Amino acid sequence: MKASVLFSGGKDSSLSAILLDQFFDVELVTCSFSVLPIGDIAKEVAEKMGFPHRVLKLDDEILENAFNIIVKDGFPKNAINYIHHKAVETLASDDVAVIADGIRRDDRVPLLTNPQIHSIEDRYGVYYICPLLGYGRAAVNALVEQYLVITEGQSDDIIKADYETELREVIRQKIGQDEIDKIFPSHVQSRVIGRVK
Amino acid sequence: MKASVLFSGGKDSSLSAILLDQFFDVELVTCSFSVLPIGDIAKEVAEKMGFPHRVLKLDDEILENAFNIIVKDGFPKNAINYIHHKAVETLASDDVAVIADGIRRDDRVPLLTNPQIHSIEDRYGVYYICPLLGYGRAAVNALVEQYLVITEGQSDDIIKADYETELREVIRQKIGQDEIDKIFPSHVQSRVIGRVK
Repeated sequence: MKASVLFSGGKDSSLSAILLDQFFDVELVTCSFSVLPIGDIAKEVAEKMGFPHRVLKLDDEILENAFNIIVKDGFPKNAINYIHHKAVETLASDDVAVIADGIRRDDRVPLLTNPQIHSIEDRYGVYYICPLLGYGRAAVNALVEQYLVITEGQSDDIIKADYETELREVIRQKIGQDEIDKIFPSHVQSRVIGRVK
Repeated sequence: MKASVLFSGGKDSSLSAILLDQFFDVELVTCSFSVLPIGDIAKEVAEKMGFPHRVLKLDDEILENAFNIIVKDGFPKNAINYIHHKAVETLASDDVAVIADGIRRDDRVPLLTNPQIHSIEDRYGVYYICPLLGYGRAAVNALVEQYLVITEGQSDDIIKADYETELREVIRQKIGQDEIDKIFPSHVQSRVIGRVK
């Protein structure tokens, strides 16, 4: 069975792919609005991991709606969850069998609710699985240390192939850098730079 | 790293062990009050699966408390969750590194709360992981079909090495069979009878 893993180039989505590798034909899928070349960044990581990779273009309207949500809210949670929900729906409608999401036990964003998950599984006939949902941060880090080589830094310095990166860029273009610093809390990002074989 | 998988001989705990096999040194652990020979039943399944197995004796007091809870409640949820919490604590204090639990996304019993999980991880210095927590029933069944041979039947007919089996037996001994039928909803149980290599 083929599994399409939502892939940001970070450690959680990379580890999810590794956990599934023995049981599924894994492909990595990076969702992008083509605002920044995040598809290329992710492809480079995917090659180092040894998995096939493709970029899924998301509708510009989704990004516009997310921009309106985040400006209204003043914080990123709802906008990121909105993009994630639409991204999973877009991928589900794209003739896939299994969608895998790298969310961990203690993550709150981006998170689908159980009703959203059941609705997507029923409407599109797919399995939506989260291989790391039953793992805490420390257990994930122990596995990452064993199977991946990563680099970490503040979210300003590490360009990741995730929704936040393009949403920040749109805010920068439309309102300016100052607004980004107000809306997004600074947090540590990881990017995978290799796989331990 | 060694992972101790809570093992009932059912499909969920068996599949959990298979998912972890590539990444951990898996041992299967069956918790028992020695009211019924469920340790022997589980050992037989574990041998078919090709994993080392041991039985962890739980304190009789836990079963007595659970009996009092279930008789007071008239339904099994709280008593089963109580035993599970105590079983995980007992195993955590038994010099293990990783405890794995076969619960699925849509299971409600037996379920630890996130505060209970964090408390156990902090107090005992263990990782508590649930490899199937991010999988729905249909996705689990698809993997089971590929990797396990199972038999299914009503909970009266299939003797499983789980908490419910011994709790039912204590109720039968102390109050009688009629009470079991009132307290426990009839439901389909699975037992693993082989592994697809």
